[in-house]
Parts: sequence; structure tokens; C-alpha cells
Amino acid sequence: MDRVNPVKKKVVIALGGNALGENLSEQMVAIRSTSKKIVELVKAGYQVVVTHGNGPQVGLVTDCFDTYKIDHDIDRFTMSVCVSITQGYIGYDLQNMLREELLNQGLNIPVSTVITQVIVDPDDPAFNEPTKPIGLYLNDEQAERRRKMGEVLVKFPKGWRQVVASPEPQHIVEIETIRVLMEAGQVVIACGGGGIPVQQIGNRLKGVEAIIDKDLTSAKLANLIDADYFVILTAVEKVALNYGKENEQWLSRLTLEEAQKYIDEGHFGKGSMLPKVIAAMRVVQARPQCKALITSLDKLMDGLEGKTGTVIVP
Amino acid sequence: MDRVNPVKKKVVIALGGNALGENLSEQMVAIRSTSKKIVELVKAGYQVVVTHGNGPQVGLVTDCFDTYKIDHDIDRFTMSVCVSITQGYIGYDLQNMLREELLNQGLNIPVSTVITQVIVDPDDPAFNEPTKPIGLYLNDEQAERRRKMGEVLVKFPKGWRQVVASPEPQHIVEIETIRVLMEAGQVVIACGGGGIPVQQIGNRLKGVEAIIDKDLTSAKLANLIDADYFVILTAVEKVALNYGKENEQWLSRLTLEEAQKYIDEGHFGKGSMLPKVIAAMRVVQARPQCKALITSLDKLMDGLEGKTGTVIVP
Repeated sequence: MDRVNPVKKKVVIALGGNALGENLSEQMVAIRSTSKKIVELVKAGYQVVVTHGNGPQVGLVTDCFDTYKIDHDIDRFTMSVCVSITQGYIGYDLQNMLREELLNQGLNIPVSTVITQVIVDPDDPAFNEPTKPIGLYLNDEQAERRRKMGEVLVKFPKGWRQVVASPEPQHIVEIETIRVLMEAGQVVIACGGGGIPVQQIGNRLKGVEAIIDKDLTSAKLANLIDADYFVILTAVEKVALNYGKENEQWLSRLTLEEAQKYIDEGHFGKGSMLPKVIAAMRVVQARPQCKALITSLDKLMDGLEGKTGTVIVP
Repeated sequence: MDRVNPVKKKVVIALGGNALGENLSEQMVAIRSTSKKIVELVKAGYQVVVTHGNGPQVGLVTDCFDTYKIDHDIDRFTMSVCVSITQGYIGYDLQNMLREELLNQGLNIPVSTVITQVIVDPDDPAFNEPTKPIGLYLNDEQAERRRKMGEVLVKFPKGWRQVVASPEPQHIVEIETIRVLMEAGQVVIACGGGGIPVQQIGNRLKGVEAIIDKDLTSAKLANLIDADYFVILTAVEKVALNYGKENEQWLSRLTLEEAQKYIDEGHFGKGSMLPKVIAAMRVVQARPQCKALITSLDKLMDGLEGKTGTVIVP
């Protein structure tokens, strides 16, 4: 049974937080509209791989298990275990809803979720300086308790938050599984939350305390599967210079050189637009034939057709 | 890329609780020895699909989220979401460890976890009489709180426990994904915790409050993939009559007729050996050419070679 269709264009779609919602009931609603848009692409003949973030979800899961541990004698749920948990339940919701929307469109195409580990380098400088905030804002007492569990806390205006390292994705362990399912014509969900962070020790893969940036992992995936399109969905239709200011300027096209210049000038927010632009740049640097696009869910199809969004070109 | 090997014997191995451990640190240890045994089979040329239970794990997850909900405004994590969570983190641990043991044996074979939904009938009589206990023993106060959340609680000698319905598995939604990965020669983990319980409403699959028996789901899987062997791993080497009594009698071979007679005589414990014997019987009834075996992890290879275990025959 070989359903490879060499004519189909391969698209990696990286879903941001707003495509998933902040909690379970929002997740149900958000994932429905997200699924409708993705199915439009499948119907148009694209071969789709979906990746997604897990910021609010992994924050909730971590906080839930850490809080429970105060009064119960349980093992700590490490960050890698918590990421695997979010891959399980976001994957379930997404594959469930994509299946339904595909059937609604008369498409009997299987959807699958790949539990994905991603190797990071334990010597990655990111481990010396945890920067990625996750989970809820905590008061002094809660923060102190979490600090005693070995977590790093940083004070923000609204309270303390746990911060974790965000190392570079080096390799996607389950890449062969993703390839096999794509070749079988399935819609594949993979690399959830940037992947389960692991370090390699000989044949062993050991979980590490980190959250890998999902856009950077998605860029790695796009390169490994020779994607034709790499799309990062975000809250805005296009990338902007001077975002939110009076002299705001929307960008339709961005060369690698321009992108680097604007990065150096500090135009793109750390932890928001910056990793997206960097991820898009990496895809184009590695494979100039891949079209890298940043746009909103609404504009997904228009963006692929070249009508809107910000395209990063060589 | 077609790596189907028609000569390879297909084995479904259903792992019980003791193959997984009761908590995260036990899980790490238990899964290591489990993985070693499974890899022996892969090395011997078997094509392996692994299924697993999730009793202690789904109990912990449910209790954790339910407890957290008392002081936090979060959506309830339904039973189907909790099962998907356990599929994620048990799958991660299992695929991680199987990969390592395969590499230790010089086998570069991908391992994958399939997030699996299983359809049940909303009119299944099991919904009228929840019987499957999950999670921790609770005191009166805790039980009352959980009852108010809509859960059914039953008093056991050691305290209250939540009980849920355990309906019949009707169909494995992601069966095609499991087939594709097997055909690609992968070691596949699927149907965790009996599968995420869903009911079908038109094109929609809606999560339901239930835990499907993992042995019955595994039997369904064995039939759907035309397995050559169906192995249920449990704590004992063989099925016994008068288990634990003076006149205990170990069984090496059990015809369908004998099995039914012993069931009628009440020899097999509800919720322990009974569903295993029933699951094995169903496989043999549907496909007499499949060898159905109940044995312990230690005796897995010996059992497949016909040296021990209890075989159910037509």
C-alpha cells in the first residue's frame, strides 16, 4: 500500500497559542476553527504536517502536579514528562477535530499524532540562563515553595513565574515515523510543544528541564521532510516594523538580509515575533526553494496563494 | 519505501500494570525490564505491537486535576482527556526505553506511539452500572467532594474509590495508522489504557466518561491486524483454577469450551484474570489461527515458543 503522491506540496504549519486556546473549553473552540482552515488546505491537495506550541498547557500541567505534590507523596513530573502529557491531550483534541472536519468535507484521510522527542545539547548555553517563562503568575509564598523544588523563578510586574531553558533543537528522534505517515497520505501532528526535550547519552535519551521553541523545532522539521511550504501562524496577518507604534509598517516580503537587519535593530519581540522570524530564516537558508510564510490562521490559504502574509525570501 | 516483511510473525503484547509500575520512578525501572523482554522478540524476528493499561496512572492524573480544581478555576479534565494524557507519558517512556534497548542490541528500528481513540456504544449497559475502580482510596470528605463533581463513588474496605463504566470496545479509530507503521517495520505502541473512549455522533467523536478494558481493546486490535500471536502479560506464569487455594491447579492449555465452563464456575477474578481469559477467547473465536497466550513477562519468549504459559485453543 503506497499512497505517496509526489505531486502533493508538503506544508508544515506551526500553530501558535491562539490557535489552541488557553484552557480546555477554549481549546475545543479554537481547535475547531483551526481544523476547518487546515482541512481547506488538505482539500486543495496539500500534504499537511501540523506542529503546535504548549505554553499555557504545559504551565497548567506543571503547576497542577507541583501543587499536588505538596500534600501527596508522588514523584516529580519533570518538564519532559509534562511536555509528553501536553502532546497527548492536545494531539487527541486536534486529531479528533481534524478527522471530523475532513469527514465533513468528504475526505476519509487518517490523522495521527506522533509523540516526538527532540534532542538538545546539554552544553547549550541556554541552560546557563533560563529565559522561557511558563505557567501561572505566583505570589511570594508559592514562588518560594517552587524554588525549593529546584525551579528557577523570575519576578515579573504581575508576580513570579517559573522560567526554563530554551535550548536549540538538534534532532527530531521520531522523524522516520513522521515521514512514514506522510508518505501514507495522512495528516500528521508532530513535535508538540517543540518536542519532548531529551539529551543523548550513548544509546540513551534522557529527559531534560527545558522547553524547546516550537517554531525552531518546526523549522528543523520542515528541512528534514523537504517541505515546500513552512507556515508559522500567529495573531497578526503580517510581520510589522515598529509594531503597535504610530509608524507601524507591515511587511509583505523580507529578504534574509533585511530580516537580519531588522532583528539587529530590535524590531521583533523576544519570545514572540523574534523566534518566528528566525525560524523562517533558517528554513530559507537551508532550503531556498521552500516558501516560508508568517501569517494569521484566517489568512492561511491566501498566504499560501501568495496574496498576503510576510514571506521570507533568500 | 516498503519494508513489509510478510514472513514476520505479528504479535500483540498487552502489558499489565506490573509491567509499568505504580508511579513514575517505578515506571522507569519496570519499563526497562519490560523493554528488554520485548526487544528479545524483535531480535528474534517478530513484528511487535505493544498495548498497555493505565489504571494507577489515570487514577493519579484524575485525582491530581480534580484536587487542583478545588482551588483553581480550571475546566474539568474529563476521563477521555485523562486517558490521552496517560497515553502521552507512558508512550513517551516506553518508546524511549524500547529505542534504547533496540540500539543496545544493534537494531536501528523506529518506535512510535499512536494516540488511539476507541469507539464505544453510548447504549452499552456498562454505562448503567459503573464497575471499574480507578485512582486512590478516598476518605468520606474527599468522596463527597468528588460526588459533587458528578463522579460515582463506591465504598471499599479501605475507603471510597471512584468507579467508572467499562464499555465494550467497538472500533479502533486509528487502526490505519497502526497498520501503516507496522508495515514500515516499526515497533508500535497503541491503544494505551484501552484507548481514549469516544462515542460516535455522525462524523463527530465525543469523549465519554469510561475506561475501556485494555485486554478487550487489545483483542480487538489483534483481530484487526491479523495477528499471529496475542499475548497478555500478567503477574503469573499460567492461569490457575482455585487460584491461591490449596487445590490450586495451573493450566497449560484451555479450549474455548473449558474456558467458558471455568468462567461459569467463577474461577477467574472479575477485573483481574476474567477479562484476560475473555479477551484471549475472543481472539481465538474470531481467528482460530491466532495463538492466544496468557503468561508473565519473564516467560514471554518461552511462552511464544510453546514452552509455558496458558494457551487458549479453539
